[in-house]
Amino acid sequence: MMWRCRRWTGLFEKVSSTYTYLLADAQSKEAVIIDPVIDEVNRDVKLIEELGLKLLYAANTHCHADHVTGTGLLKKILTGCRSVIAKDSGALADIYIQEGDTINFGEFYLEARSTPGHTDGCLTYVLNDRSMAFTGDALLIRGCGRTDFQQGCPKTLYNSVYGKIFTLPGDCLLYPAHDYTGQTVTTVEEERKHNRRFTKPLAEFIELMNNLNLPKPAQIDAAVPANIRCGIQDDPIALGP
Amino acid sequence: MMWRCRRWTGLFEKVSSTYTYLLADAQSKEAVIIDPVIDEVNRDVKLIEELGLKLLYAANTHCHADHVTGTGLLKKILTGCRSVIAKDSGALADIYIQEGDTINFGEFYLEARSTPGHTDGCLTYVLNDRSMAFTGDALLIRGCGRTDFQQGCPKTLYNSVYGKIFTLPGDCLLYPAHDYTGQTVTTVEEERKHNRRFTKPLAEFIELMNNLNLPKPAQIDAAVPANIRCGIQDDPIALGP
Repeated sequence: MMWRCRRWTGLFEKVSSTYTYLLADAQSKEAVIIDPVIDEVNRDVKLIEELGLKLLYAANTHCHADHVTGTGLLKKILTGCRSVIAKDSGALADIYIQEGDTINFGEFYLEARSTPGHTDGCLTYVLNDRSMAFTGDALLIRGCGRTDFQQGCPKTLYNSVYGKIFTLPGDCLLYPAHDYTGQTVTTVEEERKHNRRFTKPLAEFIELMNNLNLPKPAQIDAAVPANIRCGIQDDPIALGP
Repeated sequence: MMWRCRRWTGLFEKVSSTYTYLLADAQSKEAVIIDPVIDEVNRDVKLIEELGLKLLYAANTHCHADHVTGTGLLKKILTGCRSVIAKDSGALADIYIQEGDTINFGEFYLEARSTPGHTDGCLTYVLNDRSMAFTGDALLIRGCGRTDFQQGCPKTLYNSVYGKIFTLPGDCLLYPAHDYTGQTVTTVEEERKHNRRFTKPLAEFIELMNNLNLPKPAQIDAAVPANIRCGIQDDPIALGP
């Protein structure tokens, strides 16, 4: 392990129960932040500056419906930072990535795995040594993201989780975009065994997901239009039809 | 590293912003939980059972004023679990410990360091390899516990942090009992450099701590009497005068 001092940290945003992750190579000080929340950008910038990090990328796992991303604001504050999102997300960013692309920082990289189903553009970011992965809303601790809006599809999600996440090593640590119960981390093996959604056969999973009858996310009407534009953009732009 | 699968987890309780930590030796399955919250005991028991752990100890860093401990209830549910607290805390527990005592689980142990100042009975638990320490309210991320009740003393706290925590290796990960900003971890080096309270000279620290004018903790009137009794006890007991 090359990293000295702490190599990553989780940061929690209480209103939407979102986890933001900051990863850094302690030698080169190059860093990447995953799923920052606009309301917590000041906290995140302060930490990045205290640690003397050079934030290369602000990456989203997908176009969120429950909070406004902090990527646009981070770019404004931290010179050199570029926003990253999946090509299939339909959202603006400086860099569009897809299955197999990497996000490099120092001696490390994150590999993007396409894990659609919650949205078309959902990515899971896997650290190069496969010791940890950031699953966004594709896989939550003992749960998963909903599939009833934003191109959601239970069958697609099921296949993503089985094909791209459950194929990681059993002891790979999984860090989700949210947790509503105060849990902070899980593993591939734990979710294979104890995730009551994914331990069901596909047909039962689809039936379950199609009948969750969840309320609309509180912030969706503001969050999605904002997130399509990277939270905030430098210049006003015309959105497509 | 002997541990397979995940070796520890942080668990967050939103009302009092308390972190509970579960540590385990993945080979023997022996485990210890630090600062459980009574309202989250069901979550914690479920996780312990799913992971197949044998919870030997439920340890508090001190007698909390802001939430009721889950140690008494955990003991009732998980046979063989014993509660642990500092001898100087004045609270009931199965096992009383003090400076230099250890809490053993599998091939690992936590060393108790006496770090009074927030309360007389505050302990910091240091993992045997000194890679991580659980600081309770003695040291928070960029902050510290208040010193205006429960035998609080700023000078004592300052000396505890400098003598018992800042003497740990710079890259030792520090996990506090609380964080109110969503941060989850820090290091000794970071706190030495960036903790705006402890980077002050002692006299200024004392002046600052004596003039915080904080409101009384919301749950103190219920929490302290309950925590003196380990949250709940098996049998009713007569409290002293």
